[in-house]
Amino acid sequence: MAQGINRRVVLAARPVGAPKPSDFALDEAPIPEPGPGELLCRTLYLSLDPYMRGRMSAAKSYAKPVDIGAVMEGGTVSEVVRSHNPAFAPGDIVEGRTGWQAYGLSDGTKLRKVDPALAPITTALGVLGMPGLTAYVGLSYLGQPKIGETVVVAAASGPVGGTVGQLARLAGCRAVGIAGGPEKCAFVRDSLGFDACVDHRAPDFAEALAKSCPDGIDVYFESVAGHVLRAVLPLLNPFSRVPVCGVIAHYNETEPPPGPDHLPALIRATLVKRITWRGFLVFDFADKEGEFLAHVGPLVRDGRIRYREDRVDGLENAPAALIGLLEGRNFGKVIVRVGAEPGR
Amino acid sequence: MAQGINRRVVLAARPVGAPKPSDFALDEAPIPEPGPGELLCRTLYLSLDPYMRGRMSAAKSYAKPVDIGAVMEGGTVSEVVRSHNPAFAPGDIVEGRTGWQAYGLSDGTKLRKVDPALAPITTALGVLGMPGLTAYVGLSYLGQPKIGETVVVAAASGPVGGTVGQLARLAGCRAVGIAGGPEKCAFVRDSLGFDACVDHRAPDFAEALAKSCPDGIDVYFESVAGHVLRAVLPLLNPFSRVPVCGVIAHYNETEPPPGPDHLPALIRATLVKRITWRGFLVFDFADKEGEFLAHVGPLVRDGRIRYREDRVDGLENAPAALIGLLEGRNFGKVIVRVGAEPGR
Repeated sequence: MAQGINRRVVLAARPVGAPKPSDFALDEAPIPEPGPGELLCRTLYLSLDPYMRGRMSAAKSYAKPVDIGAVMEGGTVSEVVRSHNPAFAPGDIVEGRTGWQAYGLSDGTKLRKVDPALAPITTALGVLGMPGLTAYVGLSYLGQPKIGETVVVAAASGPVGGTVGQLARLAGCRAVGIAGGPEKCAFVRDSLGFDACVDHRAPDFAEALAKSCPDGIDVYFESVAGHVLRAVLPLLNPFSRVPVCGVIAHYNETEPPPGPDHLPALIRATLVKRITWRGFLVFDFADKEGEFLAHVGPLVRDGRIRYREDRVDGLENAPAALIGLLEGRNFGKVIVRVGAEPGR
Repeated sequence: MAQGINRRVVLAARPVGAPKPSDFALDEAPIPEPGPGELLCRTLYLSLDPYMRGRMSAAKSYAKPVDIGAVMEGGTVSEVVRSHNPAFAPGDIVEGRTGWQAYGLSDGTKLRKVDPALAPITTALGVLGMPGLTAYVGLSYLGQPKIGETVVVAAASGPVGGTVGQLARLAGCRAVGIAGGPEKCAFVRDSLGFDACVDHRAPDFAEALAKSCPDGIDVYFESVAGHVLRAVLPLLNPFSRVPVCGVIAHYNETEPPPGPDHLPALIRATLVKRITWRGFLVFDFADKEGEFLAHVGPLVRDGRIRYREDRVDGLENAPAALIGLLEGRNFGKVIVRVGAEPGR
């Protein structure tokens, strides 16, 4: 085992604007040896998520950037292959943050066992993982929807947005999605059961959104910003709440976009309508994971919360898949298959 | 009495951009007769406040606009001269919303008696009135400052900002003001006792603000927006709170200002730093008035909370004074003396 080769994707260069394939490099290294208390994980699946764009930049953010030459960070589902940690045994399926590589070490912290009997193990990276927890805490604790209110969510075909809308429906709200293109919108309406879904690429997007929200918007779950936010702003109701979990429209920007300046309109609306905007990171709500799994796990198991995965085969294809994700070319939760599941 | 003349200031035209003197008209009408349950008030003092700019526009807002030809709205301190309402007697000093006129009617709702023994009766329009309540609820309920935190407040020489900073000091915080010009800044530091005050008209404003906030900003009490907000934004700390009670820099704008677009930077900071922005109107916190007066009244009486008034003599000078207020030319709470106080 220790003689094997570990394929890895490392950060080759800091992107300027949108990441390019040459910003990543595929390399090989020896499979590492677990030290005392450590375990060696064989990656089965790697999660790709919009936040990764931030980690590629040197700019100050909530987490330190990936160093040039270092393995790209990311959430994974793995099989434990060797363990010097009594809490984990070979054969265990675990969810952790071992990054873009075929094998990774863990000291057992920030690692949790995944129960393959509950749901497909890839859900530990999506609807029952970080994106699902983001949706759950953002909607429940920040959005605080009341029965009969209208909840609008951007990126509605993705793992966060799709879960937000379905939880909103279960809470007695009108759920309106925003997604890119008619195919995604049809999926959000027909498969996820939203009351409506509006295509933000359509020329009449703002009008269509207004029509889909006849009583205005009480909660807007923000992960996009840009022109989507500008269409939402005039529809926000007095005392509306806007949890902010992402700004994907702006991750690739290298300088402030040209005018006009929309900031005054936002501040003015905030005052006049008494809007609450609140940024949050899922890491701040790690203590809610148990509550989340207890609530949402059974809903997923019973098919009352649905999800869609966009599978990519092979670690070498992860860079192109992340580039596509940042352009909205994915359709559902992006999961990279890195190694074969045991018994398959 | 009923044969007398009521001098009034009415809205003559809706301003485009900054209000002009010709947007107002001084007229005369008979002093009105109080009907059943009503009382007639003789205006002693009229309050001028930034929100009045909003009432002059037809644009949708939280309150309906003043009609063309109607008396301008405003808070007043008056003497009751006739009463058909058992709750009020001639000679009572009352605070209400009888507008820009020498005499006004009230049905007794939204009217409160003012105790001349507690403090000068003009304070019912300032530090112990709507501006003081705005400061109190915005800081206590939205800002939620903790001991040792840094509270920054815009328009710090005004009745809201000045009170915010002094309450923050009493709560164990570092209070940093922002004001226009060295004279106002000196007043905020020396008379109101802020830890620092920065001149937003100085060329090195952003650098000076950063120097005055060595530990960043935990609460920013926003009433201005514009370039003041842009200097504050990079200094906001993780989990900071921004109560928004005004946007005076933008009240006169007729269209979005030119770029670049600063909205993406704000949303990105909101996410990365988990900032909470919350717009509020003092009217939403009317139930806190008793608590506010019980807490802040004694502090004003004992001189632990100080304030400054900018007196204007004569109703006919109110339009020019409001225009000056919107340009930041006032120095302290603007009070228009409309009629003589009884016994003076």
